Amino acid sequence: MGLNEEQKEFQKVAFDFAAQEMAPHMAEWDQKELFPVDAMRKAAQLGFGGVYVRTDVGGSGLSRLDTSVIFEALATGCTSTTAYISIHNMCVWMIDTFGNEEQRYKYCPPLCTMEKFASYCLTEPGSGSDAASLLTSAKQQGDHYILNGSKVGWNSQPTCAVIFEDCAVPMANRIGDEGQGFIIAMKGLNGGRINVASCSLGAAHASVILTRDYLNVRKQFGEPLASNQYLQFKLADMATRLVASRLIIRSAAVALQEEREDAVALCSMAKLFATDECFAICNQALQMHGGYGYLKDYAVQQYVRDSRVHQILEGSNEVMRMLISRSLLQE
Amino acid sequence: MGLNEEQKEFQKVAFDFAAQEMAPHMAEWDQKELFPVDAMRKAAQLGFGGVYVRTDVGGSGLSRLDTSVIFEALATGCTSTTAYISIHNMCVWMIDTFGNEEQRYKYCPPLCTMEKFASYCLTEPGSGSDAASLLTSAKQQGDHYILNGSKVGWNSQPTCAVIFEDCAVPMANRIGDEGQGFIIAMKGLNGGRINVASCSLGAAHASVILTRDYLNVRKQFGEPLASNQYLQFKLADMATRLVASRLIIRSAAVALQEEREDAVALCSMAKLFATDECFAICNQALQMHGGYGYLKDYAVQQYVRDSRVHQILEGSNEVMRMLISRSLLQE
Amino acid sequence: MGLNEEQKEFQKVAFDFAAQEMAPHMAEWDQKELFPVDAMRKAAQLGFGGVYVRTDVGGSGLSRLDTSVIFEALATGCTSTTAYISIHNMCVWMIDTFGNEEQRYKYCPPLCTMEKFASYCLTEPGSGSDAASLLTSAKQQGDHYILNGSKVGWNSQPTCAVIFEDCAVPMANRIGDEGQGFIIAMKGLNGGRINVASCSLGAAHASVILTRDYLNVRKQFGEPLASNQYLQFKLADMATRLVASRLIIRSAAVALQEEREDAVALCSMAKLFATDECFAICNQALQMHGGYGYLKDYAVQQYVRDSRVHQILEGSNEVMRMLISRSLLQE
Amino acid sequence: MGLNEEQKEFQKVAFDFAAQEMAPHMAEWDQKELFPVDAMRKAAQLGFGGVYVRTDVGGSGLSRLDTSVIFEALATGCTSTTAYISIHNMCVWMIDTFGNEEQRYKYCPPLCTMEKFASYCLTEPGSGSDAASLLTSAKQQGDHYILNGSKVGWNSQPTCAVIFEDCAVPMANRIGDEGQGFIIAMKGLNGGRINVASCSLGAAHASVILTRDYLNVRKQFGEPLASNQYLQFKLADMATRLVASRLIIRSAAVALQEEREDAVALCSMAKLFATDECFAICNQALQMHGGYGYLKDYAVQQYVRDSRVHQILEGSNEVMRMLISRSLLQE
Repeated sequence: MGLNEEQKEFQKVAFDFAAQEMAPHMAEWDQKELFPVDAMRKAAQLGFGGVYVRTDVGGSGLSRLDTSVIFEALATGCTSTTAYISIHNMCVWMIDTFGNEEQRYKYCPPLCTMEKFASYCLTEPGSGSDAASLLTSAKQQGDHYILNGSKVGWNSQPTCAVIFEDCAVPMANRIGDEGQGFIIAMKGLNGGRINVASCSLGAAHASVILTRDYLNVRKQFGEPLASNQYLQFKLADMATRLVASRLIIRSAAVALQEEREDAVALCSMAKLFATDECFAICNQALQMHGGYGYLKDYAVQQYVRDSRVHQILEGSNEVMRMLISRSLLQE
Repeated sequence: MGLNEEQKEFQKVAFDFAAQEMAPHMAEWDQKELFPVDAMRKAAQLGFGGVYVRTDVGGSGLSRLDTSVIFEALATGCTSTTAYISIHNMCVWMIDTFGNEEQRYKYCPPLCTMEKFASYCLTEPGSGSDAASLLTSAKQQGDHYILNGSKVGWNSQPTCAVIFEDCAVPMANRIGDEGQGFIIAMKGLNGGRINVASCSLGAAHASVILTRDYLNVRKQFGEPLASNQYLQFKLADMATRLVASRLIIRSAAVALQEEREDAVALCSMAKLFATDECFAICNQALQMHGGYGYLKDYAVQQYVRDSRVHQILEGSNEVMRMLISRSLLQE
Repeated sequence: MGLNEEQKEFQKVAFDFAAQEMAPHMAEWDQKELFPVDAMRKAAQLGFGGVYVRTDVGGSGLSRLDTSVIFEALATGCTSTTAYISIHNMCVWMIDTFGNEEQRYKYCPPLCTMEKFASYCLTEPGSGSDAASLLTSAKQQGDHYILNGSKVGWNSQPTCAVIFEDCAVPMANRIGDEGQGFIIAMKGLNGGRINVASCSLGAAHASVILTRDYLNVRKQFGEPLASNQYLQFKLADMATRLVASRLIIRSAAVALQEEREDAVALCSMAKLFATDECFAICNQALQMHGGYGYLKDYAVQQYVRDSRVHQILEGSNEVMRMLISRSLLQE
Repeated sequence: MGLNEEQKEFQKVAFDFAAQEMAPHMAEWDQKELFPVDAMRKAAQLGFGGVYVRTDVGGSGLSRLDTSVIFEALATGCTSTTAYISIHNMCVWMIDTFGNEEQRYKYCPPLCTMEKFASYCLTEPGSGSDAASLLTSAKQQGDHYILNGSKVGWNSQPTCAVIFEDCAVPMANRIGDEGQGFIIAMKGLNGGRINVASCSLGAAHASVILTRDYLNVRKQFGEPLASNQYLQFKLADMATRLVASRLIIRSAAVALQEEREDAVALCSMAKLFATDECFAICNQALQMHGGYGYLKDYAVQQYVRDSRVHQILEGSNEVMRMLISRSLLQE
């Protein structure tokens, strides 16, 4: 699935940003559990705070495919940070799409610049993907909702659990009509799944390149590792599965953009396939780095850890299988 | 990768032909080892004898992507027959592309109608993909070549080994200049790999549909098999890998059509990925049919056998890994 | 798990018999769908018609572990024939164990010599492992049962379906008390699962040896295939998984012999693990033979086909997973 | 492979120690990168500082199989700590086996009590398994060796790199004759590979139990997760592969103990198979814990990380494949 000239252009911008502003710091952010506010605001200046948000509220107005291209590139610089950026984007998109004009104009601009940061509170301790068992409640009191309950933070991010204790939120801040929340949340997740899969893709992309370079440079028994047929063939498998992952993600992105009937199933397939395969690629890359693979100085172990969580997040891959089989068996 | 209206049209023609003229006979052709000449000539009447051959010599003048769509559809009717048709097509394309005008006008028309059948003699007993060890020789004698040597027939086809003993072939029949044969053969194989992968895709496509229907219809313990979560999830995996296989094949087809630099690597990736995954899909489908999977009355075991050989043919998947890693490590 | 001297002795006898009396004919038996009565009676003369049947009725009185060693060795000569012999053994064992003295003395001796051949009719078209949906009925009439119903033959064997139409069977022929049939059938299957797994093991054992020899002998680009690191490493994986398969089978055999509490779960694990892994080994061996792997002259394709069915027979591997998880979750 | 009463006894001792003295602290040791000296000395009081070291120098004088049973049990309490203890044991064994009496009596007793801790310096930055490229040198000067060079610490342990700068070591401390070092190091590794595989086994063992309990306890949609067939079947696969891993490790331990000819190949197979499979089991366990799998409060993520490194350590699994294929192809 070739890219047009414009797409190649912002792909380059994103790769450059990843290489210069993120990759040199990714180890430190990880080890010190930093939330890199400044780096993200710089990314927002390039339009990455609201990639698929409309331009009248500060977004970049790009397509889902464009978005995937950008997040793949950014994730080569720091997968975990990009995963957060992608969730932030999803939230802004939800306000842009389902909010009223007042909400859009009030909230989207400071989010697009990442002056403010968005969060998506869905899962609770003890609920997983079982929405009916959610315990957090919103009770109306005058023109406010009083929220009570707790939502578990995302472990690989330095976020805390979010605990609501008699937290008053103006009803005017509610997106959509009462009772529509779940549908809106699910709609956001279709794109969210493509995004998180794109982050895995970036991690795998970077891992393949690191491995290729490592094999070419590092010598054993007087020969570069690249002369080992087994490693050559493993690299071929990795690159092949990287390409297949990219294709299914981009294909889902196009389907979602075109609002095709099979978009939901394709987004689930893309998330399932790409996050499983890309973790396997990163993990194999670690193996091919030998003892170095495990060292914190080498990025490959961080790609492994960061991509692992994507098999669980945004609907675990077991949930993806459930969604896919449901759509198949009802055909 | 969506299809346009025209593509959907001949995809439908091919599916219908597969369902009506091939599927009802595939078991018999297999068990009696028949070479279904009549059925293939009917297919040729629909333009499938020279799909990507130019129209002035009787071809259909379609693209590589179109070709893949057609062969996938035909292979649902009989994978092995379609694999032969795809090789026939590759040969006609080689004459159309590298032959002179006299050769094109003499040979292509009767091949496009499948009045005549083409064959591709590459491998020899004892050579595999080692071209330098080929033993068949062509010695010039006047205006003829005298051929000696033997080429192994393709086992899953009722073809015999081809044995040349002082076989005189007019030099005028040579395609291209002397010494170019290997290059021409290799160029043909790029498309050949997409084609054979498309045949695997058709087998897997049919297997997924058969399995879905089987799960919906067959009951155990009073419930349809489709209510088993394990089988649901396996079906989801199969469908997901089918989609990924289709995408990488079509992507390679477009790259070859556009003569992109990465076309050779992509064709190898498509062949490697799709023939491995599609065999696994067919084999899993057999497992999910239980004892029925093994019965000759059920098509699924034939898809398994027919798709298995594609992992070895047209350059084994080990050769694909070699080609891919070579292109990666030279980057 | 080392063998003692006696076990090594009859292992050698079985390997020799396989090499001399079975392997030279296995292709013909397969292609002509022959049921090799004479060869099996010769095997019975060596004591293989009732390996774990008591000696007073003509059996060899060996242990489950001995039995596994023998069937692994025989299966290198012809996997499918050995699989039948193993089922025959299971049936004789059931009469020996659950029959009364009159039944034992009447039926076991001619079965141990394979003058008569036993069959095990369990599955029906449309029932699979759902015993409650069985349709075959036995109605009492005087001192006979009148049987009606049909049982599907085993496809990879030249057996027919068994159809009972008002078939009168003396009640005296019933093994055990009325109503105990299902329990007896299940008890037989524990050993049956070890046996069929041992047959897969023999197929994989033979495939590894064939592949090792093929790699050592066959040259490409002037070097033996054995000099390819990828093939070396694949062979290492195959041999490792062969050893693991053998260990879990023998471990289950000992547990069953000692009537240990975990015997049923271990037999299921052995069947699941070994038939899955051994098929994968045979299939990989086929791949490593390249184009030759598919030729009927080469035994490897027959090992692939014969071992494939073991993943489905004697309780499919999905049923094995069910039995195992049930025992785990009840712990 | 059943255990005798004595083995069951010290298996129980080791499990209890793991549960009481290690498991409650494993998260803290990991997060604070502590080297738990006190806990290890307590373990040594139970005889775990020199399990297969002779009793006259303070060892426990147990067999290789006994050792594997103990390390599997300890590793359920803390895999990484047990991996260190296992390396310590290997070193003490090397002194006990290859040292002279003076060395044995001087060094083994304080090592068996873990008053002193042993380390094994083999790999260097830039050498991996290529012994010939080692740079560390030992030059004789009077009755001392002067050592120069550096050895990389093991990342998952809070060890530093070991750097020798004109480090004088008495020649009397050399184990074995000059030039025998490599052979001695390799001999130690056979047992070391069984040990490290046993540690992976303990991690997988603990992960299976945690997962079983989690599935039984945790509810979704009103039902325990254990009622999901897909999760049941995955658990069955995990348990089966755990058993196969245990069998191949114990089988290698017995072969090494009996100094059988196939011991080296079996140790390599055990290390390759068990560390690959056990990592996969732990990783699947993490997946089945969903979002909880990633939380530092849950042990499963630590088992995943700790077992991952075993695929690389003590000779990477690629080196294992090399050793195995070498022994196969030379047969």
